[in-house]
Amino acid sequence: MSTPVKPISITRVEGERFLDKPDLVVTEEPLEIRVGYGPEGDRKQFSLSVTMRTPGSDEALCMGFLMTEGLIENATQVQSLKYCEDLGRNEARDNIMRAELSPDTEVDTEKFKRNFYTTSSCGVCGKASIEAIRVDCELRQRKPMHLDQDVIFNLPARLEEAQHVFKHTGGLHAAALFDLKGELLAYQEDVGRHNALDKLIGLMMMKGENDHSESILLLSGRISFELVQKAVRAGVNVIAAVGAPSSLAIELAEEFGLTLIGFLKADRFNVYSGKEDLVLEHSPQT
Amino acid sequence: MSTPVKPISITRVEGERFLDKPDLVVTEEPLEIRVGYGPEGDRKQFSLSVTMRTPGSDEALCMGFLMTEGLIENATQVQSLKYCEDLGRNEARDNIMRAELSPDTEVDTEKFKRNFYTTSSCGVCGKASIEAIRVDCELRQRKPMHLDQDVIFNLPARLEEAQHVFKHTGGLHAAALFDLKGELLAYQEDVGRHNALDKLIGLMMMKGENDHSESILLLSGRISFELVQKAVRAGVNVIAAVGAPSSLAIELAEEFGLTLIGFLKADRFNVYSGKEDLVLEHSPQT
Repeated sequence: MSTPVKPISITRVEGERFLDKPDLVVTEEPLEIRVGYGPEGDRKQFSLSVTMRTPGSDEALCMGFLMTEGLIENATQVQSLKYCEDLGRNEARDNIMRAELSPDTEVDTEKFKRNFYTTSSCGVCGKASIEAIRVDCELRQRKPMHLDQDVIFNLPARLEEAQHVFKHTGGLHAAALFDLKGELLAYQEDVGRHNALDKLIGLMMMKGENDHSESILLLSGRISFELVQKAVRAGVNVIAAVGAPSSLAIELAEEFGLTLIGFLKADRFNVYSGKEDLVLEHSPQT
Repeated sequence: MSTPVKPISITRVEGERFLDKPDLVVTEEPLEIRVGYGPEGDRKQFSLSVTMRTPGSDEALCMGFLMTEGLIENATQVQSLKYCEDLGRNEARDNIMRAELSPDTEVDTEKFKRNFYTTSSCGVCGKASIEAIRVDCELRQRKPMHLDQDVIFNLPARLEEAQHVFKHTGGLHAAALFDLKGELLAYQEDVGRHNALDKLIGLMMMKGENDHSESILLLSGRISFELVQKAVRAGVNVIAAVGAPSSLAIELAEEFGLTLIGFLKADRFNVYSGKEDLVLEHSPQT
């Protein structure tokens, strides 16, 4: 079984000093996600995606990926998530996972081939990218979002306390969900930031927790279009990130009424979208 | 024409203060790369990839992508690189680029479908991933690599001086090539770190500069498997990065004899691979 960190030996060069020492790095391994119906070997099975990920929470990663990419709406549509058994080589066993979907879950494989592999027919641009998501996701009714700004300021420190792989390797992205009082609900880490988010969403789905409308999604890095897309699919209303957002991430957040906060530090942040609906409050002094 | 940065309006929250102000964010837009022979509309044309990128240096991005992904070996195999003309919608024009390959450049489209879209037949694991690259790239003769450690210490500061989009937006990855004396040869920025590297390699190819064996590749972030893969294809021998490498990035670098430096700061760094062949020297005091 692969582990999320691997021991290695490095040479640390510091000024004039050289030090050979053991160290830890984050593991990166491919994971193939296969989708089928009935038992393994079913002929309708197809390979959905290969992602470079950090081993661990692979079931959650698959579950989250299936949902945020629009193949399923909820966890009941997945009958099983298992590493494939009928493989020629042992070493690949941990790296191929098969999702068995319920018989009534129809997957338009052509659509997913188009989405993952090539372009949609309506043109390649930011507008078309946003359009494609609008087909799959409902626009929300905009309503005031009350957030406590002191809670927001504290989120990065709370995430840092919780992260353990990052502490050892510095090589990971993290995604976390907090409630509006700043309590950590769950977090996941991965070498890929989209994987960290899929793991987090998948983990919540497996716990039966599907309503994220009163939660804050915290991201350790920058905010890309793809991350907002996944958050929209998962019904997240507030994203706060330590890094900067891209133009298309902001446009998508605007379109779907998400509150997007970036450059979050202990005493300041920027609000990029959802400003009109945002009501910032202060914790009562204790 | 899309620009690499876009003006937006944000609300900055700093302690008790709220400030509405204009700001700049990095542009993110999809780019589709199409490959064909002869004039646009040729029937053998196919869509190779869609990547979310920062507009700018699109020709270099395509050229570099074609090379680092193994479709071509050099720039002479590309007869033209142009935005597609025959599109229904104007807004997509800047986001679809077509590479016209020379007639003798054969592309195994099935192979690339496999590589990009699904798995190789030999299994899904780090070993298989490395194996796949060994087919395309020659293993190098290992030989001593002489590097001046003061030159290495200075690289991040030199890159920072040069980066202009990052200064404004904080939203970009950078890739740069330096000679062994620390002179900046070229650099590129992009919202995606793999794109930044492809742009850099493509830019050098378009200048006719294809030998990177005596250069240092500097990366602004972490080192993934994919980045080392592209560097191997481009014939790079030394990678230095500000961030951490992954396990598979180190394994691939070891396999191909690359010197891999991570956590590079002004007075220290870690050497993750190529330690046996590395001879660190000091600049003569001036």
